[in-house]
Amino acid sequence: MRLHDYLPSGNGYKVRLALAQLGRPYELVEYDIVEGATRTPDFLERVNPNGRIPVLELDDGRMLPESNAVLWYLAEGTPLLAADPFRRAQTLQWMCFEQYSHEPNVATVRFWVTHGHVDLSGWRAELLADKRRQGDAALAVMDRHLAGHAFFAGDYSIADIALYAYTHVAPEGGFDLQPHAHVRAWLARVAAQADHVPITHRPGDG
Amino acid sequence: MRLHDYLPSGNGYKVRLALAQLGRPYELVEYDIVEGATRTPDFLERVNPNGRIPVLELDDGRMLPESNAVLWYLAEGTPLLAADPFRRAQTLQWMCFEQYSHEPNVATVRFWVTHGHVDLSGWRAELLADKRRQGDAALAVMDRHLAGHAFFAGDYSIADIALYAYTHVAPEGGFDLQPHAHVRAWLARVAAQADHVPITHRPGDG
Repeated sequence: MRLHDYLPSGNGYKVRLALAQLGRPYELVEYDIVEGATRTPDFLERVNPNGRIPVLELDDGRMLPESNAVLWYLAEGTPLLAADPFRRAQTLQWMCFEQYSHEPNVATVRFWVTHGHVDLSGWRAELLADKRRQGDAALAVMDRHLAGHAFFAGDYSIADIALYAYTHVAPEGGFDLQPHAHVRAWLARVAAQADHVPITHRPGDG
Repeated sequence: MRLHDYLPSGNGYKVRLALAQLGRPYELVEYDIVEGATRTPDFLERVNPNGRIPVLELDDGRMLPESNAVLWYLAEGTPLLAADPFRRAQTLQWMCFEQYSHEPNVATVRFWVTHGHVDLSGWRAELLADKRRQGDAALAVMDRHLAGHAFFAGDYSIADIALYAYTHVAPEGGFDLQPHAHVRAWLARVAAQADHVPITHRPGDG
């Protein structure tokens, strides 16, 4: 398999972490999204018409975009995804929460403030403040759930991988995790899982 | 089962449409989200700590938030969700696309312009314009896919239900579907499916 990806991407990291923990070999194809490498006519035609990474390319050349769809595809039948129907639904529930309530705030703020190519004056300064508020609210929802649960949907699963990716680097965007003690304890539990790798991980790294 | 919902919500409609087509009986519990009925301490404690509808309440009282997680839970083992692993992944891919690239633009613009309770002057006027651009781009991605496919992931599925919900009311938000001929033809195909119901549908309606 090939993973079309951008190393600092938390969405890409979700897939790289799952592949590492599942022991699946793959080739990494890197793009610089800041330079628009995923918006070229060739990428749109051949890899993903929506112009985003990560995209998993199967051995037969079929392309699968959307990090959470890739996680589900890879985890089916493994310990990273439960067999019980309600547990599976809860797993997907938290992955949807991540894409809708968490990523557009926590991840976007990090991207904007660390890459410096987006003009954050004018109306985007107001939007940035709004995203900070909404990101803090998402972290609070996570903290409330984790007060009574070790992981998001029963045992450690792709729901934890999906939420870990941008939560553990949230301070890079200026988010304060100090008020969220349950989130911090959960981050440590996720990082302690067997075969955990950091966001800088490439296949073949030690 | 009980569905905690708000009738004009496309996210709620996804679930009502699937329930109707699957012939599953349920009770509808309605909330006025504009009046903050899903942000009360009781709702946050008892129904969904993330303060959003729809939420499916199972017969044993367990709560399942997130429309796309509910769709997946209900459709498993039915004709609305394929058995083939790659088809399933494509189904989820388009549902993720809907929640990340489509809903925050197409649905949010419709909600803002039809409900009139959000101040759309100042920085939100710029955000509205940005969401219009991004919503048009999402519709173009759909149109490109539908140029070569009757539905989003093989046969009619929950991916079509998820994308139909806010696409068919996109003109209420000022989006022009005229340039997207394949989208318009697909909307007609979805509306022609057996047991299709409109967004105003409540259980027990004819």
